[in-house]
Amino acid sequence: MSTRLLVDIHTHVYLPRYVSFLRSRTQVPRISSRTGASEKEDSRLHILPDEPSGGRPVGPQYWDRNEKLKFMDTHSIGISVVSPANPWLDFLDPPGATEMAGLLNIDLESYCSGSPTIQLSIGSIRRLYAFGVLPLVPSVPISSILQSISQVASLPHLRGVIMGTKGIGKGLDDDDLEPVWEALAKEQLVVFLHPHYGVDAAWGNKDNGHVLPLALGFPFETTTATTRLILSGVLDRHPSLRLLIAHSGATLPQLSSRLASCIHHDPVVASRLKHDARYYLGKLWYDAVAYGPEELEFVSKIVERAQRFQGAKQIGSERIMFGTDHPFFPPLSSTDKWMSVVENLDAIDSIASWNQAQKDGVCGNNAITLLGLGST
Amino acid sequence: MSTRLLVDIHTHVYLPRYVSFLRSRTQVPRISSRTGASEKEDSRLHILPDEPSGGRPVGPQYWDRNEKLKFMDTHSIGISVVSPANPWLDFLDPPGATEMAGLLNIDLESYCSGSPTIQLSIGSIRRLYAFGVLPLVPSVPISSILQSISQVASLPHLRGVIMGTKGIGKGLDDDDLEPVWEALAKEQLVVFLHPHYGVDAAWGNKDNGHVLPLALGFPFETTTATTRLILSGVLDRHPSLRLLIAHSGATLPQLSSRLASCIHHDPVVASRLKHDARYYLGKLWYDAVAYGPEELEFVSKIVERAQRFQGAKQIGSERIMFGTDHPFFPPLSSTDKWMSVVENLDAIDSIASWNQAQKDGVCGNNAITLLGLGST
Repeated sequence: MSTRLLVDIHTHVYLPRYVSFLRSRTQVPRISSRTGASEKEDSRLHILPDEPSGGRPVGPQYWDRNEKLKFMDTHSIGISVVSPANPWLDFLDPPGATEMAGLLNIDLESYCSGSPTIQLSIGSIRRLYAFGVLPLVPSVPISSILQSISQVASLPHLRGVIMGTKGIGKGLDDDDLEPVWEALAKEQLVVFLHPHYGVDAAWGNKDNGHVLPLALGFPFETTTATTRLILSGVLDRHPSLRLLIAHSGATLPQLSSRLASCIHHDPVVASRLKHDARYYLGKLWYDAVAYGPEELEFVSKIVERAQRFQGAKQIGSERIMFGTDHPFFPPLSSTDKWMSVVENLDAIDSIASWNQAQKDGVCGNNAITLLGLGST
Repeated sequence: MSTRLLVDIHTHVYLPRYVSFLRSRTQVPRISSRTGASEKEDSRLHILPDEPSGGRPVGPQYWDRNEKLKFMDTHSIGISVVSPANPWLDFLDPPGATEMAGLLNIDLESYCSGSPTIQLSIGSIRRLYAFGVLPLVPSVPISSILQSISQVASLPHLRGVIMGTKGIGKGLDDDDLEPVWEALAKEQLVVFLHPHYGVDAAWGNKDNGHVLPLALGFPFETTTATTRLILSGVLDRHPSLRLLIAHSGATLPQLSSRLASCIHHDPVVASRLKHDARYYLGKLWYDAVAYGPEELEFVSKIVERAQRFQGAKQIGSERIMFGTDHPFFPPLSSTDKWMSVVENLDAIDSIASWNQAQKDGVCGNNAITLLGLGST
């Protein structure tokens, strides 16, 4: 096994405070426990109203830092940049979301600052960093979001925020979010764009478990949100905004030339944008959670193609970073390593057009650079 | 310019009979004409209830064979395999759909058999072939669909059928469609799977014209339908079924390893399938309507990857065929060539990993072979 540094930038936590809160709730999202059974074995997380199969079983891997570290050790992951998992604060009212965001961000800082250290060439740093949360709920004052951004920027182990696709109710292309993007860009915080709601895409009546909403619905949601952001000109107005798109850019890379053609054929939309749609794909960051080398290499090529549309020449792999999606996709049976992790690592190592330095970059060095890990 | 043969396998027609019918309707789908204005300039097609911008302007390019041939000449397209455009017969009752399918298929045969000829090495053949239609509507007797398949198989210039995603109301994974797949496979008719409904994926309130439903919604719909077909085991039970997926497989290629991983983590679904999800992508056919070389080359690689999952070794490009999506995406201003055509041809010619024979295959020879053009 390689001793190279692995940094996991797509790994979730339900913080104990959040878990307690979900346990106290009687409506979705909530965590239910069967009466009389041990809490550990019978807790189930319900995050969507129509979730199949009675919610998903959850246990300490979702909230216990020791379990996160154990998982990291099993897979030789040196550093994890944890992010609160969906649905974040989306279901709260403005005061509740604002208060909870403040508390969770402090919890996240403690979660990280109290973690073990790892020795890198740049010095000894903590093994846990985090993306914070913002109180993105309908009717919240923009000033509350901006204060939350300031808080995140002030906490030394928080290096960005995770964000769903609804914004403050009207999506991420909402004009009212303009000061939010401005502040996020100014603070150079990474915005990890992550799905939660999926889309209503005719899944049908067959028992396909979670397969269709997870495999297709999640990426469709992310693709739509990212496209709407691009079409609204956010990346034109804030070119230094650091958007990290979950699940390797979802389906936007494969649809990008089609998108460009559709925009070209709609002069009203085209006239609003400074660049061809494909330019913006070279301005995004991507996790390496694609499960296959062909998909991942394709994303890398799409990033490099952006230079044809006025972008500066760049190496595609440098915008891609290893991720696991832990603690989701747990193994079916007890096993040393998680298939989902092994697959995503194998994918990186199987890409013939990447040299070893590029692979090492995707595995860890790109995240160190982008997130400034080790620097204060 | 090259003198190689170009065969367009994604090109639509609203047959005159269908146009008259749409003009007679007062509900969507329909064609409206402004009173007092010339029909040519002011006809508008409304295919979805919530269509933005008052429907799309339509003219003779949608129904006039001479216009199709003129378009083909402009772009040096030797042969077109035309398909009725959406929404086909989806909105009719069973007797209406059955009768109309019968008439339209005969119209299609006339449309083709009366077209000019082109001289190929295999002999002189017509410049127009077609995909027929089936009466796929709720409550239609399966026997009516089977009769329609027999009719299509008996008409010499019809080489397959075009099909939406709803089947007879419950989607394409409906058990009741089993005899339909069996008959289509037996007759070796190509099934051109094409979107119409899109998905409800939170397009938001911004004026983005048709961009989001067209660029994203259409491919999302196709991806979902194809995935449901795969999950239902249709390709396991009918391995010789010839499925041609619109818009270069939509987003299924980019999601295929994620899909495989989701299936792996759901033993109920996994146990139903004979192969890894990625195997089936090597059993599909794809049009080359992706608008960019990177996207198209990626599809080719995804086809070749299938051999890792028990598939036979094959050349990816051989399952990809040139298409234009004419008469959609017309140029904004009068111009010799259509940008959408030029882009898709340029994409084929720009793929470094394809040799000239492969490019010629995608441009025309693959379609000749798959559809048996020139043979009776």
